[in-house]
Amino acid sequence: MNIIFRRLSMEKLHLRTRQEVEALLGSLSIPFNTIEHPEIKTVKEGLEVCAGVSGAFVKNLYIKDKKDNYYLLSALHSTETPYKILGKLLGVGASGVRAGPPEKMQEQLLVVPGAVNPFSLANDHGNAVKFLVDKNILSVESLLLHPMINTATTKIATADFLKFLTHIGREYKVLDFTEEKEEEKKKEEVAEEVNILGISVPKESNLSDWYSEVITKGGMIEYYDVSGCYILRPWAYMIWEEIQKKFDGDIKKLGVRNSYFPMFVSEKALSTEKNHIEGFAPEVAWVTKSGNTDLEKPIAIRPTSETIMYPAFSKWIRSHRDLPLKLNQWCNVVRWEFKHPTPFLRTREFLWQEGHTAFATYEEAAVEVRQILDLYASVYEDLLAVPVIKGQKSELEKFAGGFYTTTIESFIPTNGKAIQCATSHCLGQNFSNMFDIWFEDLKGKKQYVWQNSWGLTTRSIGVMVMWHGDDKGLVLPPRVAATQVIVVPIPNKKDLNQVMEKSREIVDELKKLGVRADIDERDNYHPGWKFNHWELMGVPLRLEFGPKDLQSKQVKLVTRYNKTVTVLPLTELSKIPEMLEDIQKEMFRNAKALIEKRVIKATTWDEFMKELNQKNLILTPWCQQNSCEETVKKRSAEESKLEEGDHLTGAAKTLCMPFEQEPILPEEKCFHCGLAATRRVLWGRSY
Amino acid sequence: MNIIFRRLSMEKLHLRTRQEVEALLGSLSIPFNTIEHPEIKTVKEGLEVCAGVSGAFVKNLYIKDKKDNYYLLSALHSTETPYKILGKLLGVGASGVRAGPPEKMQEQLLVVPGAVNPFSLANDHGNAVKFLVDKNILSVESLLLHPMINTATTKIATADFLKFLTHIGREYKVLDFTEEKEEEKKKEEVAEEVNILGISVPKESNLSDWYSEVITKGGMIEYYDVSGCYILRPWAYMIWEEIQKKFDGDIKKLGVRNSYFPMFVSEKALSTEKNHIEGFAPEVAWVTKSGNTDLEKPIAIRPTSETIMYPAFSKWIRSHRDLPLKLNQWCNVVRWEFKHPTPFLRTREFLWQEGHTAFATYEEAAVEVRQILDLYASVYEDLLAVPVIKGQKSELEKFAGGFYTTTIESFIPTNGKAIQCATSHCLGQNFSNMFDIWFEDLKGKKQYVWQNSWGLTTRSIGVMVMWHGDDKGLVLPPRVAATQVIVVPIPNKKDLNQVMEKSREIVDELKKLGVRADIDERDNYHPGWKFNHWELMGVPLRLEFGPKDLQSKQVKLVTRYNKTVTVLPLTELSKIPEMLEDIQKEMFRNAKALIEKRVIKATTWDEFMKELNQKNLILTPWCQQNSCEETVKKRSAEESKLEEGDHLTGAAKTLCMPFEQEPILPEEKCFHCGLAATRRVLWGRSY
Repeated sequence: MNIIFRRLSMEKLHLRTRQEVEALLGSLSIPFNTIEHPEIKTVKEGLEVCAGVSGAFVKNLYIKDKKDNYYLLSALHSTETPYKILGKLLGVGASGVRAGPPEKMQEQLLVVPGAVNPFSLANDHGNAVKFLVDKNILSVESLLLHPMINTATTKIATADFLKFLTHIGREYKVLDFTEEKEEEKKKEEVAEEVNILGISVPKESNLSDWYSEVITKGGMIEYYDVSGCYILRPWAYMIWEEIQKKFDGDIKKLGVRNSYFPMFVSEKALSTEKNHIEGFAPEVAWVTKSGNTDLEKPIAIRPTSETIMYPAFSKWIRSHRDLPLKLNQWCNVVRWEFKHPTPFLRTREFLWQEGHTAFATYEEAAVEVRQILDLYASVYEDLLAVPVIKGQKSELEKFAGGFYTTTIESFIPTNGKAIQCATSHCLGQNFSNMFDIWFEDLKGKKQYVWQNSWGLTTRSIGVMVMWHGDDKGLVLPPRVAATQVIVVPIPNKKDLNQVMEKSREIVDELKKLGVRADIDERDNYHPGWKFNHWELMGVPLRLEFGPKDLQSKQVKLVTRYNKTVTVLPLTELSKIPEMLEDIQKEMFRNAKALIEKRVIKATTWDEFMKELNQKNLILTPWCQQNSCEETVKKRSAEESKLEEGDHLTGAAKTLCMPFEQEPILPEEKCFHCGLAATRRVLWGRSY
Repeated sequence: MNIIFRRLSMEKLHLRTRQEVEALLGSLSIPFNTIEHPEIKTVKEGLEVCAGVSGAFVKNLYIKDKKDNYYLLSALHSTETPYKILGKLLGVGASGVRAGPPEKMQEQLLVVPGAVNPFSLANDHGNAVKFLVDKNILSVESLLLHPMINTATTKIATADFLKFLTHIGREYKVLDFTEEKEEEKKKEEVAEEVNILGISVPKESNLSDWYSEVITKGGMIEYYDVSGCYILRPWAYMIWEEIQKKFDGDIKKLGVRNSYFPMFVSEKALSTEKNHIEGFAPEVAWVTKSGNTDLEKPIAIRPTSETIMYPAFSKWIRSHRDLPLKLNQWCNVVRWEFKHPTPFLRTREFLWQEGHTAFATYEEAAVEVRQILDLYASVYEDLLAVPVIKGQKSELEKFAGGFYTTTIESFIPTNGKAIQCATSHCLGQNFSNMFDIWFEDLKGKKQYVWQNSWGLTTRSIGVMVMWHGDDKGLVLPPRVAATQVIVVPIPNKKDLNQVMEKSREIVDELKKLGVRADIDERDNYHPGWKFNHWELMGVPLRLEFGPKDLQSKQVKLVTRYNKTVTVLPLTELSKIPEMLEDIQKEMFRNAKALIEKRVIKATTWDEFMKELNQKNLILTPWCQQNSCEETVKKRSAEESKLEEGDHLTGAAKTLCMPFEQEPILPEEKCFHCGLAATRRVLWGRSY
C-alpha cells in the first residue's frame, strides 16, 4: 500500500465538531460510520451502548508527568493502564504520572472531559501533547472513537486511523502494557512470597504458576530485570556444584582436560560453517559498543564455542600424536531466544559445560559420543533421580552443522511435555574441513579429524524440580540436596537446654557420618512453621527431636518425598546414610515406572493423536523421511487446535529414535505416511 | 578549521599535466612547492632524490580485487603494504588482491605507470577507483607526490591534500597496516614456535617478548583474534583449578555460599551508584543487537556485579536474622580497556571470583575484609610462591564507590613494576543506601547494612609466571603444577622393555603417594629434547631413569627451579612428596628475600627518584593528601622522561599503605610536600 497523502496546511485545520471530523475523514476517502447515543461518561457505559457494533471501544486518557509533559493515551477498553505502569513505560518512575488538568486539555485539544478522543490531536498544532498508543489497539480491525462529542461514536478501520495520523503529521509511541504488567506481577508475587509461606497453586491445576512459586519460594531462583535472565541462588547453585563435581570427575577419567576460551567471537569465525551459523544466527547477541565508542566491528557472544575453539584446534593438531585432543569448559553461553523464557528450562544466558574433542578415526569419535551420553544419563538418573530415554535425533532435529546427534530425553508427567535433557554430537568432518583441522597420519598422509561436541546445562535442575516437586514445594533427591537432613529441635521450657544440646550432638554425629546435616535453631519460629519451611525447601529427611524423644532416646524421621514417619533409636543414627540412599533409589524407581507407563506404542494416526492428547509420549514405526516429519508436525498442530484445554495443543515433534527398541519387521509401515518403516521414533509435544 | 570549499563542475575537471595540477591547487589557495628531477621509477629512487626535502615520500599502488573492484592506495614509503594484508583489510581474503592492469589504470586515472599519484583521482569522475589511505599518512605534516609525472615531485601539506580531496568530492578509507601486521606477526610467531623449541629471548633483555614466548610455548596461552582476549589452555587452567579448590574451600569455611547472577545488567541498575559507574563506564561493553534486531535498550556486560547483586540483596534482607549474607560467584567479567593488553595481567575478558557480603555492623564487615585479604595472600604466597605486601589503598586508588580498599601488592623483579594482586573492599553503607538494603535491628529500627566485596582474578597466574619463569621457560611451584614429576625413561635397545616397565611402576608408585606424576613415553623424541620440553613447561621435578639406574636401583632427579641434581635409591621414592614441599617453600623463601631487598625507604624526593629508577619500590612517610599524590604522579612522570632506558619511564603511584609499618614519629614530614606525615606509603611504577 503506497498511498501518497495530500498535506493540508496545518494552521488551518481545526476539528471542533462531529461534522468537522467527518468532513476531514471524507476528504481523505476514509470510510466511517457514526452512531448516535445518549451522553456516556464511562468506558462501561460506552461498552453497553456499542454492544451491537463490531469494533473495539477505545478509552482515552489525558495525562501529564512531573516534568509537565502532556500525553494523550488511546488504549483498548480491556487493557489495564494504571498510572504506576504508565509512569514506568514513560521512564518517569511509578509515581511520575497523573491526570492532566481539564482546562489545559481544553486549551490544547479543544475537547471537553468525557469526550476525549484522538481526533482532537489535529487541534494541537505544536505537538504539545504526545500521543501514546496501546499496542493492543494495533492488532484489532476497527476502532470506536468519539467524534469530538460523547453523544456519538464513530467506527473507523485501524489502518485508516493510522492514515489519519499520518495526514495530520502525528508520530506516536506504542506502549506494551502487558509485558510491563507481567514484570509488575512477578515482583508483586515475590514480595508476597516473603509473607506467605507455602505453595498457593496446586501442581496439577497450573503447572507453570506452581513452578514459578516453587522455585522462588524454594530459594532457587530470583527474578531479574533483564528478560530471560535469572539469579541462581545458593540452594540451586549447590545442585549445579554437585553435578559439576560428578561429571567433571567422570570426564577427567576419560582424559578430558578443562580450559577456557574467550566468550567473544568475531563475525568471520562465527560464520565459517554455513549450516551452523544458520542454526544460531537469529539468537546471537552482539556487542557493538564499549563505553561511548562504537566498536569497529560488532563482536558476538558465544551461543556455543565450536567456532571459537576450532581455529585453535587447527593450530594445535599437526600429527597423529596430537590426537585425541579432548577439551572441556564450564562457562556461560547466551542465546537470545524469543520464545517465552522459563527459569532453568529456557533462559537467554545459561551455564553449561561444553566438551570438544578431536580424533583420528570415526570409530573413536563414535565410541566417545556414547560414553558421554551415558555419563549424561547418569547425571540425570543417578543424581537427579530423573529417568531419561537415550536415542538419536532425526535429521531435522540434529545439531546445526553436525553429523549426527545423540540425546537423552525426558518428559514432565504433569503436562506430558517432552524435554531434551542433554546432547552428545558427532560432528563428523564437517567442521574440520571448514576450519582446516588435519593431521599427518602414520603414513604421512593428510587426514581431517573426526570431532565431537557435547553439552549439559543448568536446565537439568529445572527438569528435576518439575519431576519431583509437589504441592508442598521442592523435593530434592538426597545426592544433590545441599542439606540432606534438617534437625528441628522441639524444646519445651523445662528441657530447653538438654534438647538443644542433644540436637546439636545429633547434627555433629551425622556430619561425621558424611551426611550434610543442619539444625534450625531459630527461636522466632515455632516447629510447625519450620516443618513447612523445610518441606518447601525440599530437604529429603526431617529429624524431629523433643523432650519425649530425649526420654525414650530416639528421634522421629519424616521423609520428604513420601511423608513416611520412622522412629529411630539414637543408637542407630548410623542407619541414616543408608536411608538417604534408599530414598534416592526409590525416587528414581518410582519415576522410572511412571515414564515407562507413559511411553505408548501407536501404529496409526488416530492412536497417535489420542495418546498425544492423553499427555503421553508415543513410539511409532517411522520412515525417517524429513517430509513425513514436517507433515506430522503441521498436522498434529492443526488437529490439536480442535482439542480443549491448556496443555493439549501444539505440534508433536520427534524426540529421538531410542537406542533400545524392538527391531522393525519387514512388513512394518510408517504410522503416518505408510512408507516402509526403518526405525521406531519417539514423539511428543516438547519444551 | 571551518573552510567552505567552492565546488567546481566535476565534468569539466581533468588533470593531465603538472600545470593542470598546480593550477587547481592555486585556485584552491593551497600552497605547494614542486621540485624537478630525473625520471624515478622506484620508491628507493624517490627517497634518494627527495632526501633534502622535508615531507614524507608517498608510494602509490593501483590494485584490483577478485571481484574486479579497483583501488588506489597511498601509503607512507616506510609502511609495509603486502597484498596479503591488504586483502584482509579489504575483507576479500589474503589472496584476494593483485596489481591492477596498467591499461585500465590509464583509462580510469589518465596516469602512466611510474607516475601514479592521488591527484589523478580527479580524473575518475564516476568514482570507479576507490581511494585507500594508509593511516600513517595522516600523522605526517606534509606529503611528497608526483604531479601526474615522475620527473617532478610536489610537496603539499597533508591538511591541504585532504582539502583537495574534499574539493574533488572524494571519500577515502583509512587502513591500519600496523595493527593487522601485528596480528600476522603473532600468528607467524605461534607457527614458528611449533617448530622451535626453547625460549629465544632472555628474560632480562626484553621481559615482554620473553613473557609472550614463555606463555605460548609453555602451553598456557593461545592468542586469539579478538583483541585483549586469550585462550587459557589446560596447562594454565589447571592452575586456576588449584586456586579455586583452595580458595573455594577457605571461604566456604567462613560460611560463604556460591551462586550465579546474570552477566547482563540494565543501564539503570548499572548507574545507580554514581562514583561506581564513573569508575567503570568507559570500559563497559554494550550489547545492542540480537540476531538482526536492535534491542529496545542496550544492555551492559558486567565489569563487576555490585549493581547486579544488590537489588536482590535489598529483597532478601529484611531482618537482622537475614544477616550476615555471604555470597560468592566464579565467573567471567569484561572490562574493555584501551591500555595495551597483556595475557593474564590485563585482558578484556577475565575469570575471577567475586564475593559480596552484607553485615549488620561495621565491625563484622571490617573483620571479614581482613580475613579475605589473608586468604588472598595465602593463595599467592602458599600456592604460587609469590610474596605480597598487604595494605590499604589511598583515597585516589580505592574502589569506585567503596568506603576503603585493602590490597595485596607485589612487583616484577625484572622490570621493577608493581602489580596489584587482589583487593578486598569495605563498601561501607554507600551501596546499601543507593540500593535500599536495610534491615530491622533487634529494637525494630531500620538500619542500612555494611557491605564488602572482594575479588581475585586469573592475573595471579601471570604474576607467578613473571616471578618464577627463567630463560628456559616456565617454572611452576609444585603445589599448582598440573604435573609435579615428569618421568623420562632413557632406554637403550637392550634394556628397552625393562626400563619402560620400571619407569611405569615408578609413576604408579608416585601416584599412590599423592604425587601428580606423568611419564613421557614418546618414541619420536630423544631424551635431550624431552628434558628441554619439560623444562619449558616448568615441571618442578624431572625423574630420569635409564639402564644404569636400573642396575644400581636408583633414579636421577633434576629440580627445575635451581637445576640441582639428586640421586635417590628406588626404595626412597617416598621422599619425593617432601622434596616437592621443600621446593615450594624454597621458591617462596627466595622470592620473599628478593622483594624485601627491593623495598627501599626514602625521606626525600631525590632519594625517591633515585630508587624508583633503580626499579625498586619505595616506602616513604606521607601526608595522605590527594593533591600531594597527584603531584608526585605528575612530577615523577616528567622527571622520568629525562631518564634513559625502556622500563625506567612513567609515573609512580601509591600501591598501598602497608599494614605492617613502623609508627610515624611526631616530627616526621611527608617526603614530598613537607606537611606532617600521617602514615608510610609504598610507591612504584605499576602495571
